[in-house]
Amino acid sequence: MNPPPLSELEPNAVEDASLADAGERVLEWTWRNMPLLTRLREELGRERPLAGRRIGMCLHVEAKTAVLIEALRAGGAELVLTGSPATTDDRVAAALARDPGIRVYARKADTMDDHHAHVRRVLASEPDLLLDNGADLIAATVEAGGGRVVAATEETTSGRHRLLGELAGRVSFPVVVINDSPIKLVFENEQGIGPAVLDGFLRATNSLVAAKTFAVVGFGSCGRSLARTLRALGASVIVVERDPVRALEAAFEGMRVAPVERAAELADVLVTVTGRPGAVTTEVMKHLRDGALLANVGHFATEIDVPGLERLAASRRELKDDVTEYVLEDGRTLYLLARGEMLNLAAASGHQIQVMDLGFALQAHSLRALSLDPDAFTAGYNAVPREIDEAVAEEALGTLSTVER
Amino acid sequence: MNPPPLSELEPNAVEDASLADAGERVLEWTWRNMPLLTRLREELGRERPLAGRRIGMCLHVEAKTAVLIEALRAGGAELVLTGSPATTDDRVAAALARDPGIRVYARKADTMDDHHAHVRRVLASEPDLLLDNGADLIAATVEAGGGRVVAATEETTSGRHRLLGELAGRVSFPVVVINDSPIKLVFENEQGIGPAVLDGFLRATNSLVAAKTFAVVGFGSCGRSLARTLRALGASVIVVERDPVRALEAAFEGMRVAPVERAAELADVLVTVTGRPGAVTTEVMKHLRDGALLANVGHFATEIDVPGLERLAASRRELKDDVTEYVLEDGRTLYLLARGEMLNLAAASGHQIQVMDLGFALQAHSLRALSLDPDAFTAGYNAVPREIDEAVAEEALGTLSTVER
Amino acid sequence: MNPPPLSELEPNAVEDASLADAGERVLEWTWRNMPLLTRLREELGRERPLAGRRIGMCLHVEAKTAVLIEALRAGGAELVLTGSPATTDDRVAAALARDPGIRVYARKADTMDDHHAHVRRVLASEPDLLLDNGADLIAATVEAGGGRVVAATEETTSGRHRLLGELAGRVSFPVVVINDSPIKLVFENEQGIGPAVLDGFLRATNSLVAAKTFAVVGFGSCGRSLARTLRALGASVIVVERDPVRALEAAFEGMRVAPVERAAELADVLVTVTGRPGAVTTEVMKHLRDGALLANVGHFATEIDVPGLERLAASRRELKDDVTEYVLEDGRTLYLLARGEMLNLAAASGHQIQVMDLGFALQAHSLRALSLDPDAFTAGYNAVPREIDEAVAEEALGTLSTVER
Amino acid sequence: MNPPPLSELEPNAVEDASLADAGERVLEWTWRNMPLLTRLREELGRERPLAGRRIGMCLHVEAKTAVLIEALRAGGAELVLTGSPATTDDRVAAALARDPGIRVYARKADTMDDHHAHVRRVLASEPDLLLDNGADLIAATVEAGGGRVVAATEETTSGRHRLLGELAGRVSFPVVVINDSPIKLVFENEQGIGPAVLDGFLRATNSLVAAKTFAVVGFGSCGRSLARTLRALGASVIVVERDPVRALEAAFEGMRVAPVERAAELADVLVTVTGRPGAVTTEVMKHLRDGALLANVGHFATEIDVPGLERLAASRRELKDDVTEYVLEDGRTLYLLARGEMLNLAAASGHQIQVMDLGFALQAHSLRALSLDPDAFTAGYNAVPREIDEAVAEEALGTLSTVER
Repeated sequence: MNPPPLSELEPNAVEDASLADAGERVLEWTWRNMPLLTRLREELGRERPLAGRRIGMCLHVEAKTAVLIEALRAGGAELVLTGSPATTDDRVAAALARDPGIRVYARKADTMDDHHAHVRRVLASEPDLLLDNGADLIAATVEAGGGRVVAATEETTSGRHRLLGELAGRVSFPVVVINDSPIKLVFENEQGIGPAVLDGFLRATNSLVAAKTFAVVGFGSCGRSLARTLRALGASVIVVERDPVRALEAAFEGMRVAPVERAAELADVLVTVTGRPGAVTTEVMKHLRDGALLANVGHFATEIDVPGLERLAASRRELKDDVTEYVLEDGRTLYLLARGEMLNLAAASGHQIQVMDLGFALQAHSLRALSLDPDAFTAGYNAVPREIDEAVAEEALGTLSTVER
Repeated sequence: MNPPPLSELEPNAVEDASLADAGERVLEWTWRNMPLLTRLREELGRERPLAGRRIGMCLHVEAKTAVLIEALRAGGAELVLTGSPATTDDRVAAALARDPGIRVYARKADTMDDHHAHVRRVLASEPDLLLDNGADLIAATVEAGGGRVVAATEETTSGRHRLLGELAGRVSFPVVVINDSPIKLVFENEQGIGPAVLDGFLRATNSLVAAKTFAVVGFGSCGRSLARTLRALGASVIVVERDPVRALEAAFEGMRVAPVERAAELADVLVTVTGRPGAVTTEVMKHLRDGALLANVGHFATEIDVPGLERLAASRRELKDDVTEYVLEDGRTLYLLARGEMLNLAAASGHQIQVMDLGFALQAHSLRALSLDPDAFTAGYNAVPREIDEAVAEEALGTLSTVER
Repeated sequence: MNPPPLSELEPNAVEDASLADAGERVLEWTWRNMPLLTRLREELGRERPLAGRRIGMCLHVEAKTAVLIEALRAGGAELVLTGSPATTDDRVAAALARDPGIRVYARKADTMDDHHAHVRRVLASEPDLLLDNGADLIAATVEAGGGRVVAATEETTSGRHRLLGELAGRVSFPVVVINDSPIKLVFENEQGIGPAVLDGFLRATNSLVAAKTFAVVGFGSCGRSLARTLRALGASVIVVERDPVRALEAAFEGMRVAPVERAAELADVLVTVTGRPGAVTTEVMKHLRDGALLANVGHFATEIDVPGLERLAASRRELKDDVTEYVLEDGRTLYLLARGEMLNLAAASGHQIQVMDLGFALQAHSLRALSLDPDAFTAGYNAVPREIDEAVAEEALGTLSTVER
Repeated sequence: MNPPPLSELEPNAVEDASLADAGERVLEWTWRNMPLLTRLREELGRERPLAGRRIGMCLHVEAKTAVLIEALRAGGAELVLTGSPATTDDRVAAALARDPGIRVYARKADTMDDHHAHVRRVLASEPDLLLDNGADLIAATVEAGGGRVVAATEETTSGRHRLLGELAGRVSFPVVVINDSPIKLVFENEQGIGPAVLDGFLRATNSLVAAKTFAVVGFGSCGRSLARTLRALGASVIVVERDPVRALEAAFEGMRVAPVERAAELADVLVTVTGRPGAVTTEVMKHLRDGALLANVGHFATEIDVPGLERLAASRRELKDDVTEYVLEDGRTLYLLARGEMLNLAAASGHQIQVMDLGFALQAHSLRALSLDPDAFTAGYNAVPREIDEAVAEEALGTLSTVER
């Protein structure tokens, strides 16, 4: 039995349809900087590997994602999508909603209740492919017995944890987890984080990086990227890292290494990049010097204990966009950047466009492969096939002026 | 004979007095990042070396300058000031205008005629000290016979050229030229330009620096700073430089070196930093690849021949803030950043705050010394006294967490 | 039944016993730069975990290894050892041979026949622990039925290949493979190779790195280390790499990327770091410019086809130590560094001492653990236990001046 | 009156004429790496601008200088030369002495009395051009009334001080001071010192730079070069600098800054690069940690108070080439590298060959210009003419693979 036609689904839920022109203008510059998706759009348009497919999708609704969506449309798919409320760009949502082959349920002002209703709307459309972010669509599909879904992709590591944990053995269709690709690890984390955070820091503070002491808490691939970028721009970097092998690596790269309390005493700016909640406790804050800045780049807005900071504070004031001043009971002033949210996303535009071009090319390639031959994959967790990693890397090399041929 | 009291001068000319609160908020973050002026404000407040002085001033009316103005006020001076129309921050102008000891003639929307009228208003206030930018106030004062002026400072190199050129032997009072200080050369040019331009580039484009070829036209102290910053972030940098000694230096720093036409062929992004008009001609543009970006960091918005580019173009469109798309008659598309204006100023916030703190500390120190003992200086051009350079550097070292004591 | 006492074994085979004093002097500086082994020697001396053990050993007999040997001696072991002929330091061999608890069979002038006889002598001593390099001792022990051996360590990756290949299922005792530790990967390869090769290049050539084009063939962890070091010193680096993901990573780090033939055309110096024979063929050599330098850093002296180069050449001359000039039939001159052997070993002193301190600390820790409780390991291949990696890293952090505590 | 023919001068004073073949072999590799002098030799050979000239010369007699000498010979000059005893390479001296157009008075074993006698022999040859190092030949010529000398070059800054000091107004012929050229400043100091010292450090110690704290005393152009090189290789660098402007510059480049006593407490390695005697006193040594290394890169072997160190020491031992161990009365051990002599010269081969090619090209160009038209210069001090600087830089650019044309 066929799924309902798009025209019979609940109507688009976007903030303001009149923003569509503005949204298209934003999309245009993004397209210019995504050569891989540009090329894929052409290929998909010729091959139509997604013809007849309906993709249910849950991902940030903003310009870079919209480029991916348009490329998938060119391949013949219909899309029914929702986003993650805080990151929705209402202009982009309006532009996408113009396309009769797309249903959009995403508004920046959505509450969590709205969001859950949107997710239900996506599933009610009876998609046969899923493009998921955190495995919510996948889990709901499994609960509901699988429906028409033949395959899925999942963007995140936390989605992978669910697939290999609570969902293990329960997913009857193949899921390709994008984030496990070396391309994501190398280019989003090791190469991309440093410049993206730098962008956020410069915008939020207009402050010099050179001649400052930065404490970087966490020396995984993201923390290392940040530490290297800051050091390259003349900062003195102190790394806090519990794994002694990584801490030693930091030392060999010219960083100083210290326990978090000592790093807090020495730092002008303390940035947390650990990926776990509670990395910067009120105990750590007690060691910060008067005038210190605090920022978060980890995956959770909870790496800095902001409620704890509020309790330490005698007063709190928005000093400028993305800078909140806290005057503590003990007289010290601390500045929290971007309210403790991810600095690269909240104060800048996230990853540089070309970095997302790589990750979304993995998505488009994977969805094509899954659509054409789902049986070539196993049920449940799949890594990105090595030939897709290589194809994306080859295509990216082909777009670079620094590659000789 | 005394000059007219401020209250008898023409009233403030600001865009909107109700912006004053917003202006004060902007000023606050700036103050927090200018430790040298913070300290000088205290010193000047105790010593009052400018008591009874009226300073006529012509400089960008924005937050960093306003901090300097407030420090001079603390030292006892009255100020009558105008700005440079395009760079006026109307919020800051409104905040300054609240102070009865300051007269402000500056609106972002001012025409050049307005500006000239403002300059006349500044001179009509009969200042005894000048803080000049391009020697316009000084030249007008000389024309008018010198008036009550006992001393002046001049911010720029072009002002120095006038002092040592057309005005040589004609200025009866000492003028300290700030820009000749090694502190300005080292920290604004060699250290400051690279990060400031990077900030502008990231905001305007959200584009990656790594894996791109940048042509940097001009390897003076500013061009070198930019080239080093780009290379540190993973760019492949090609330098264009007429002086063979400097070009060789670029090569020793790991840059490639090429004539401008060849550099244009290879570049994803071409940035001009020569300090002279016409560095990027339509002839150069003919060598750029399809999709190339063009930006200017030189002192003149005329380094890129924008009118020439307009002539080459079949169409022109604002693609996003600070990105203009030109589709040329020959089919290539070029992107001009920030309309050919200085990228660091137009697309970002100019020098990082701490960098301007250094330069404005030179201003405050120099005005103090000139006010207390103008006879210690010679008439006409004076370099910043070495002891002021050293004092400012010592004070700056005293504010850094990377300095052990 | 007990093994024969050392005094009944064949006598030491060293070049010149009178070199022992010189050997001890060499050892002394090495000890000063191996703080981990210094500390371990004390610990082992207190604990005596190797008391009653006889270690049969095959590893380069030079100063750094000798420090390891002396640390193991302090732990109570007897050692019977041979080396790898070309890398034997006859002074160090003489110094070790003075110790009645050590038998040494190693001379720099040894032929391969001598070497094989030495290996037989080591096995004839009936060791109960092995410290192996390439799994030769292990393989021979397996052939002979296992003897008294209760456990072994193996230094190299090629040894691991044999353990998991031809020897799989045939080794009755546990073998810890040192090279698989992240400590070896990070510190010997990613951090250590670049500076070590730089040292060799500077000594061999007295030539500038800056303003030169280096082609680095292979961008694994060793090639990346070399490429980064050269770039940091002002070289223009072109990377040749077959894996497109790695090649893209090189591009993101600011390297140019090219096929080997194009890289050869552009390079002043071509260095091969691939780990596989035949990476630089005579076909590649045809693309090199007149005056180019050729060097090898890979594991095999066969990465450059030196016999092929000889055939291309009209003449061949040792121009200075570690620089051989080849004038080719076509008129070009090529310079081969260190005869195509590993440049870091042949023209300098290999890894910096502190780097080897890390790797040998892994050896000493592993031998202690194996001696005390071999049953805690499985027969055949074992990775270095994670707690040993962490212990070594912690100890190393404890020796650094850049670590705050 | 003509000067005596070379054949009537005192015979060559070289250590061992049979070393000439070895000397020629050394010279050959040096020639290959001096493309500017190679080209100049051809030009001078065609033009013969030095025909009939006799050059009296006092400069280090080693391979790089010998290349300059052979280029001047090709231009038609005879040369009578002596060196600076410690730096004489007896093989090179022997090779030069073979040429009947050259008289050599230089032996490594020469005493200072020998050296003064050699200087007298050079002057007794009645040269008409001088190539001087420290202005000894020039001063002696002035004392003697000028003789036949029509022009001179002087290599060093200390020679310039004498020309502008004690010899001011007394020199009747033009002297071009090579060291004042921006080419020398940029390429020998800012670019050349760091790698050359690194070479010396690696050879002397086989020790890692990364993860070590280096104190660099002096942040002039040489100190800055060293600090940058060490930081690029992963060191944590602390700069000691009395000039606050330079100290601030160091801080902006990511160095820590400290007083010398504090830097000594923190450093694993302390290197002095100040250019003045007594920079490292016994007072400073009291702050060094147990095991610290001490090295000198300044112009004077007297930057470290070695006699003072000897007094502090209970014992002293040559631990290896270029490493002397001092056990102090207080129990600490210090290691002095290269006996306190310049580390880059004493433990390595000085500047990389290409760097000296630049400086000696300035010499050859200047001597040609002085020989052809001495009257184009003024008596006494002359800077290198700007057109020579530019010509040398242009020629150097022409030899680089990183320059596109």
